[in-house]
Amino acid sequence: MSLQGRDKKHLWHPLTQHKSHPNHIAITKAKGAVLYDENDNEYIDGISSWYTCVYGHCNAYIIDKVCAQMETLDHVVFTGFTHKPAIELSEKLIEILPDNQEKLFFSDNGSTAVDVAIKMALQYHFNHDEKRTKIIALENGFHGDTFGAMSVSGLSVYNGPFEEFFIDVSRIPVPNAENLDEVKALFTQLITEHEVAAFIYEPLVQGAAAMQMHKAEHINEILKIANEHNVVTIADEVMTGFGKTGKNFASEYIETKPDIICLSKALSAGMVAMAITSCSQKIYDAFYADDMKKGFFHGHTYSGNPIACSAAIAGIELLQSDEIQANLKRIEASHKVFDEDIKKHPKVGNTRQQGQIYALDLNIEMERYGNLRDKLFNSFMNKGVCLRPLGNTIYILAPYITTDVQLQKIYTAIWETIEEL
Amino acid sequence: MSLQGRDKKHLWHPLTQHKSHPNHIAITKAKGAVLYDENDNEYIDGISSWYTCVYGHCNAYIIDKVCAQMETLDHVVFTGFTHKPAIELSEKLIEILPDNQEKLFFSDNGSTAVDVAIKMALQYHFNHDEKRTKIIALENGFHGDTFGAMSVSGLSVYNGPFEEFFIDVSRIPVPNAENLDEVKALFTQLITEHEVAAFIYEPLVQGAAAMQMHKAEHINEILKIANEHNVVTIADEVMTGFGKTGKNFASEYIETKPDIICLSKALSAGMVAMAITSCSQKIYDAFYADDMKKGFFHGHTYSGNPIACSAAIAGIELLQSDEIQANLKRIEASHKVFDEDIKKHPKVGNTRQQGQIYALDLNIEMERYGNLRDKLFNSFMNKGVCLRPLGNTIYILAPYITTDVQLQKIYTAIWETIEEL
Repeated sequence: MSLQGRDKKHLWHPLTQHKSHPNHIAITKAKGAVLYDENDNEYIDGISSWYTCVYGHCNAYIIDKVCAQMETLDHVVFTGFTHKPAIELSEKLIEILPDNQEKLFFSDNGSTAVDVAIKMALQYHFNHDEKRTKIIALENGFHGDTFGAMSVSGLSVYNGPFEEFFIDVSRIPVPNAENLDEVKALFTQLITEHEVAAFIYEPLVQGAAAMQMHKAEHINEILKIANEHNVVTIADEVMTGFGKTGKNFASEYIETKPDIICLSKALSAGMVAMAITSCSQKIYDAFYADDMKKGFFHGHTYSGNPIACSAAIAGIELLQSDEIQANLKRIEASHKVFDEDIKKHPKVGNTRQQGQIYALDLNIEMERYGNLRDKLFNSFMNKGVCLRPLGNTIYILAPYITTDVQLQKIYTAIWETIEEL
Repeated sequence: MSLQGRDKKHLWHPLTQHKSHPNHIAITKAKGAVLYDENDNEYIDGISSWYTCVYGHCNAYIIDKVCAQMETLDHVVFTGFTHKPAIELSEKLIEILPDNQEKLFFSDNGSTAVDVAIKMALQYHFNHDEKRTKIIALENGFHGDTFGAMSVSGLSVYNGPFEEFFIDVSRIPVPNAENLDEVKALFTQLITEHEVAAFIYEPLVQGAAAMQMHKAEHINEILKIANEHNVVTIADEVMTGFGKTGKNFASEYIETKPDIICLSKALSAGMVAMAITSCSQKIYDAFYADDMKKGFFHGHTYSGNPIACSAAIAGIELLQSDEIQANLKRIEASHKVFDEDIKKHPKVGNTRQQGQIYALDLNIEMERYGNLRDKLFNSFMNKGVCLRPLGNTIYILAPYITTDVQLQKIYTAIWETIEEL
């Protein structure tokens, strides 16, 4: 039986209605920017497997480091114990994170990184004997699927069964040139009238909201107000981290730095699950006390896993290499040239770019999980390109090692698909 | 600078008050049942690094499989795509899970496996147009640290800042010979008076509650009542799974099978983070519909990660090998012999064993995170054995490849430590 056939027996895929979407394409190998399926078809991985494999699939440099780590130390409890991969990663990561970030707390995915950040923010105030319980989030933000992360997400698609269990969240519109004064007033009002613990936001690019982008100077105005009122600021850089926006982190573009940053996805270089919640000394100090109870009693078994840390170290080394830095500039420039042409197409509406992230909206209404969206996806796959449209938004977030020829293949697939619509 | 010194700069460890516990022992390598620190000290890993590395550290059989997988396919989106490691793992795992388990849903750690299980249970009723929102859990159960998992945990140590965000949970005592009728009556009353969606329990052994054990026939009575009222039953086998209790899963001892099982820890053989929430066809079918909304819109980026799946496949192959099966019997018998003697010690109170899990309580009151508990931990470490007492409970859950000589070293460390108290 084909892999696709065997898949149907026991696997329940994420974010999938299996009745309307019974078939899953069986990928058998991957190398660089290319995925290969069981029928020997090739696809350019135009979204880096959900923004993870940015240094390319099955990268020899990363594999060598990870295999060496597996031979030396696979795993050890991270309470009472430590190890070199976690220490080296902490040193390398703190070096490239915004200057105010001082401490790293490990977990296993973006959702738990956000749950950790929310718990840190709530307990920060609790430890200061202040009762603050409300979280403010951006409209259409997405932060994950655990109960805490789901609560702060404005975009979760079908939350009916869970809504009554959400933590206390208020939302503000994403600030822009037109609404800035209004949003500032609303934010200030919320802080004045409620006990606001934290503000969570995806800096510069809201990924799941179809790569919606906002300006650094506008979000900065909100962060300044948060700081004035000691509202803990949480930057969710799970998607934007590690070079995606043109700098290592989107927060670098924004003058006011966050108290807490959530990292995952490209953090572990597309190898295995890992997440980190980093924070400033101010946050950490609120937990450092003679009173045991003031500590942060959160933990996951594979916290700080040495194998995942070794992948992350290799990833940062690659990110800092001249080769990848040159590639980042090349791909960013290439997308700009593509944009100059495609944005004139009558079926294309808004287009936008931030570093490696390029998005265009079609002038056609589409449901997020509807037939038209599926038709787009299938059209790209038939042309040998893996792109996953978000409703009527087509976006590219290709591995940093994608060649010019491969980029052209992506652009051509988009042109042809739009023409055929 | 020593690794221990460098550790202090940027790492925030889980479940740690850094002011009272500033020093973390730096482990530099591991092999089989032994951990080595940066000062060349050796420690038998008497708790399998939190019940993960049960086939031994840096196991060549597992490493070979994982490295081969890394060379072939590191990662791919698991929505719309599938791959051989996930398929093979699903076939192997379904073969050894209780017969009623049919589908597997991936996530990354025990907490998310529980959040997924709770969301499945809530949406199961929602999709059947039934409003059921209360969860019933056992007193002193522990299920993880994300908001959902924390809510159902009765044991979470310091929940002050978070309690008001918990989902709606009622607790029942762990059933035993004395209280069985009472607990059954309470459980029935809760189900009759409230809209109960699910019952979650750690089958046979409550790990974080200091390896408290209960009998299969008593918990079975509760499960029977749950089934009669269509209350979804969730077995949290994150700790008990994969041979710990003497069978592959603790649920095998209990006549009534759970609707949902949470798996992690030893699932991925001590290599990298991964979790699975398995379920029966009945649960899956409630989500399988023409209506997109009835699908389960939960997902984590590294869901079904091929590298983690390859480790899990190797782990199951080892678990089923004659060698490991013989080891399981040998270690279980060895603990029994040790127990015969130590239980007579005047400082020892209750002792208990379930397969590989051995626990003894000291006749001394201790705080869970107090000085006396730390003194015990340090005494074991000084004798070359890593055991992490839970309050006044000393327990052993050694790798399945621990030799008789290594077991004797563990037993001697316990004898000597108790004598010195």
